[in-house]
Amino acid sequence: MRMKKIKDYLKEYSYLKSIHSLLHWDMETMMPSGAIEDRAERLSYIQGKIHSHITSSEYQLLLADVKKTKLDPKEKILLKELEWDFHVNHALPSQYVKELSHEQTIATHVWGSARKKNDWKKFTPHLQKLIDLKRKETTFYKTDRPYDALIRLYDKEYSSHEITKLFSELRVGLLELKNKVNKEKTFVKIRDLSGPFPLEAQKELNQNVSKLFGLPDEYSRLDTSAHPFSINISPLDQRITTRYSLDHLDSFGSTMHEVGHALYELNLPREWEGTPFQEAISLSVHESQSRFWENIIGKSKSFSEFIHPQMKKLFPKSLKGVSPEMLFQVFNKSVPGPIRVESCELYYNLHIIIRYEIEEMIFNQGLNAKDIPEIWNNKYKEYLGVTPKNHADGVMQDSHWAGAAFGYFPTYTLGNLISGSLYQKMKKEIKNFDKDIKNGEFKKIGSYLKTHVHQKARSVTSKEIVGKLNVKDYLSYLNDKF
Amino acid sequence: MRMKKIKDYLKEYSYLKSIHSLLHWDMETMMPSGAIEDRAERLSYIQGKIHSHITSSEYQLLLADVKKTKLDPKEKILLKELEWDFHVNHALPSQYVKELSHEQTIATHVWGSARKKNDWKKFTPHLQKLIDLKRKETTFYKTDRPYDALIRLYDKEYSSHEITKLFSELRVGLLELKNKVNKEKTFVKIRDLSGPFPLEAQKELNQNVSKLFGLPDEYSRLDTSAHPFSINISPLDQRITTRYSLDHLDSFGSTMHEVGHALYELNLPREWEGTPFQEAISLSVHESQSRFWENIIGKSKSFSEFIHPQMKKLFPKSLKGVSPEMLFQVFNKSVPGPIRVESCELYYNLHIIIRYEIEEMIFNQGLNAKDIPEIWNNKYKEYLGVTPKNHADGVMQDSHWAGAAFGYFPTYTLGNLISGSLYQKMKKEIKNFDKDIKNGEFKKIGSYLKTHVHQKARSVTSKEIVGKLNVKDYLSYLNDKF
Repeated sequence: MRMKKIKDYLKEYSYLKSIHSLLHWDMETMMPSGAIEDRAERLSYIQGKIHSHITSSEYQLLLADVKKTKLDPKEKILLKELEWDFHVNHALPSQYVKELSHEQTIATHVWGSARKKNDWKKFTPHLQKLIDLKRKETTFYKTDRPYDALIRLYDKEYSSHEITKLFSELRVGLLELKNKVNKEKTFVKIRDLSGPFPLEAQKELNQNVSKLFGLPDEYSRLDTSAHPFSINISPLDQRITTRYSLDHLDSFGSTMHEVGHALYELNLPREWEGTPFQEAISLSVHESQSRFWENIIGKSKSFSEFIHPQMKKLFPKSLKGVSPEMLFQVFNKSVPGPIRVESCELYYNLHIIIRYEIEEMIFNQGLNAKDIPEIWNNKYKEYLGVTPKNHADGVMQDSHWAGAAFGYFPTYTLGNLISGSLYQKMKKEIKNFDKDIKNGEFKKIGSYLKTHVHQKARSVTSKEIVGKLNVKDYLSYLNDKF
Repeated sequence: MRMKKIKDYLKEYSYLKSIHSLLHWDMETMMPSGAIEDRAERLSYIQGKIHSHITSSEYQLLLADVKKTKLDPKEKILLKELEWDFHVNHALPSQYVKELSHEQTIATHVWGSARKKNDWKKFTPHLQKLIDLKRKETTFYKTDRPYDALIRLYDKEYSSHEITKLFSELRVGLLELKNKVNKEKTFVKIRDLSGPFPLEAQKELNQNVSKLFGLPDEYSRLDTSAHPFSINISPLDQRITTRYSLDHLDSFGSTMHEVGHALYELNLPREWEGTPFQEAISLSVHESQSRFWENIIGKSKSFSEFIHPQMKKLFPKSLKGVSPEMLFQVFNKSVPGPIRVESCELYYNLHIIIRYEIEEMIFNQGLNAKDIPEIWNNKYKEYLGVTPKNHADGVMQDSHWAGAAFGYFPTYTLGNLISGSLYQKMKKEIKNFDKDIKNGEFKKIGSYLKTHVHQKARSVTSKEIVGKLNVKDYLSYLNDKF
């Protein structure tokens, strides 16, 4: 009964999050430009409501009450997760939260204009200010190393110690594979498809594949925005966005990526609305889902064979003389560049490892803003063999640091590793895995993820799903492919 | 200082209303169909929040406090309006408000699908449920007649007694004019423009005219929905919708109509955000604005002359051989039909009078849902000389009753009467009124409405703007035109 009270209390939390999501989605896709100040006020109003709802003394009492009652094993896990969230949300003094939010807004604004003018100097003091604030934040929590306090905001299963070990091993494996691919040249020399790619045809392709992967129109929308994202408006209302260009087909991969996120949210058990049992395990596991559909399925040889006739119909000129095998090579073209979001699968994790290593130095070793670019460029030279032609395409390319989201980047690569392990398990358990993909039959795969990942929500850890995380599964997946 | 506290408190009220508006707009225009139950829950949650915010004991104390202080004349008016609102809102138990909101959302959904299938039986129990709820609502207030309690939710200046008198007089005048027009035949025999009207061209026409009337893209959006509406998402975010058909140009009139509403909201004084001084006087006055732009401007001879070249460019085939004079006659073609929203100006108020008379019977005389269709059809036969071929085109044609908006319909005709009086005043005060319209110059007209109506908000009554309401101004406007 006391647990029931908490569930009711958190149902309101889920309503408030719904509202925040809709205000945000609408701002990015629909809102008239002149309403930005109006909207900022309303967003910060609802953000305040959300925060006070889950840190209130009323809620604290409900938690304390439930702790005194006899709980079944599942309820015990739920309580542990609830206490964790409360601890994380409650630990920060509201004065600090306000200051951080203020500095974040300013830094993001400065970053936007400084990046356009390649003006690193202008951005540096703001970045340093955020670093100082986040260093302060780490002192509000008790962790072995300061950086750990930030990582666990996005994934509480991993410490910087573990990640450093995993990423070092991964880096070695990726650099070896890179040399092989460069020597063999198939995936280096393949020519890109030539455009233009009519937007209506791209949209049709994206919508077809979304449905095939298991995201029906009835519970979702696909729109356009400056940066692709997916958002849960409510359990049965999942929205994803992409961006279109006539010159390339990036919208296709980005859509498959966001569909992966949306499927996770759609499949969470709605009877636990507002509680951790209706939330993704971690950002890393969330990312494993998007990357599974985008890369492991969407860039596989079988998928190329399946999608080839459809693409030929939609883009007859671009596909002229392109065989399914060549399409597979195009999807996996591997040439290093300085920009993360334009990277192929082979190089992507090296981009992330660089950011991770730098964040680790900032928070565990005292690196400051002004010294980052030199390290950035040296690492790009060493790992990827490229040097960004300026800071805009180098250290300033991502918005994450301007938004103070330190600790977020490693979840991208952790997600890739998890997707690799899921793939190896699935290959064993699903008969005709490749053949299904070739036939455009994704039901068994979707239902595997639904049962083993989505519906478990935060009642399990990622380790309970894929075992202790290893680098081998993912590397052997990549080695098989190339 | 105490008034400042109230203003701050009501700013939060305006945020909550913004959120409600966005949830509603999104539901009507964007939301995936499967999310209807999710959305109904969220709408009723936020409706509950709005209600408890403006009926809280905290707010009641603020009002009592401010009453003790020395107020200037404007503040005295504000306090009176605030007390009125508090009284109206406070009378309803929050359990009742939640129940109504939930039933409304469901009934509207049922109405949508039942109407498509002409399934009156499916809709009847939902309508009866809403009638029962609204009958209950009238008991929470003390009014001379039960129906008055509902009317004053939309216009507190009028009782059913006064409206019945005004509408009876109007009905007589309209039936006389109808006989004249039918005898003279110019507006009966004129041939409709023949389609198809390409949707893109319709959209362009609508967007051009919206801008010309004073509604810029920067602060507005035009979308499509099943039933056209306008909504204030926030002061600088006004959204309107229309619906398109290749067969006719109804979207044009409907857009001018909604632009009139949106201009009112856009021009309300935003320094009074959340208070009655940033609210329309009444729904009737709101409606006077939409009908002023849709009919008095948009169906005038001068406007036909102005818009003729633009329309000829956008719809060359349809306008072939059509003179500006003929276009004027087309805009005012007067043939009775069963559908309100397709009605010409001459018959429109008869549609409303029928609805008004039925609502009056429901709430003052005990009429129930199952008996409405017979009365509906009899009155249509008597006043308009037509019989709807089915319920979808008869009693189920409007969404209002599905939304429990009883008392709303009369404001359409009250709005027409007010627009007639505004027109007579403007004709005297604005030099070159007709010539301006002919030249597509709407600034003086827009600014007259902004100054004399919009910016006054609820600091005045409609009677202070146009004097005691009469039927003569409007009838003489119609008589001059035909």
